[in-house]
Amino acid sequence: MKEPGRAEGLVTFTPIGYVENDFDAPVMPETIAVAESRIIVAAEFTEGLTGLEAGQRVMIVFCFHLVQSYALLQHPRGNPSRSKRGVFALHTPYRPNPIGVTVVDLLSVEGNVLRVRGLDALNGTPVLDIKLV
Amino acid sequence: MKEPGRAEGLVTFTPIGYVENDFDAPVMPETIAVAESRIIVAAEFTEGLTGLEAGQRVMIVFCFHLVQSYALLQHPRGNPSRSKRGVFALHTPYRPNPIGVTVVDLLSVEGNVLRVRGLDALNGTPVLDIKLV
Repeated sequence: MKEPGRAEGLVTFTPIGYVENDFDAPVMPETIAVAESRIIVAAEFTEGLTGLEAGQRVMIVFCFHLVQSYALLQHPRGNPSRSKRGVFALHTPYRPNPIGVTVVDLLSVEGNVLRVRGLDALNGTPVLDIKLV
Repeated sequence: MKEPGRAEGLVTFTPIGYVENDFDAPVMPETIAVAESRIIVAAEFTEGLTGLEAGQRVMIVFCFHLVQSYALLQHPRGNPSRSKRGVFALHTPYRPNPIGVTVVDLLSVEGNVLRVRGLDALNGTPVLDIKLV
């Protein structure tokens, strides 16, 4: 058994870009599912998009940047009539590490801008990684 | 158009636990796919596992902690006979932000220890998040 202490070192990432869309505040998942967003990739990382094409499915790893707290036990979908569950068994953004992972439809790639559908991230969200599924 | 500068703020996470398995160096994906790993969750986060059960599929978000460099264009699977592609169109761990995301089979949950199958992460890997699929 290793030292639990090895889990304590911090991990730091630099966003590779950010999200632009019409959502400055949370909306219903049903709305997000059909909405378009743009991912603006920083110029220094644009060459890394080579090979991505419209029609592909891509995984977007992002940071819920407005989240500043979490609870280990939460009501599913914030509904108090449902029993609390552990945060790791829920999709809530109020997580110890507020990381979002969503697979979206890639609609177009033009220069450093990806147009995608289905990204459940607000306007201004920092994007950490993009992975072809 | 927003300031590209907003992509430049750093994002810092605290690992919620780490991986224990027999792999101290990279192995073939075929080997990993059938191998068991344990995820040791730090005591302070264990309550967040409530609701996770054997038989579920869970997404593990982790950090390729040994990776210290990347290239924006790489040969797929490191094979020089294949044309280079962008890092965001590849599964390589040598990424600007070395984040891994893998869906695994949850074999058991006992206290703060998850036993999983199919995790492509080396022994000692920091785990950032767990999400029920």
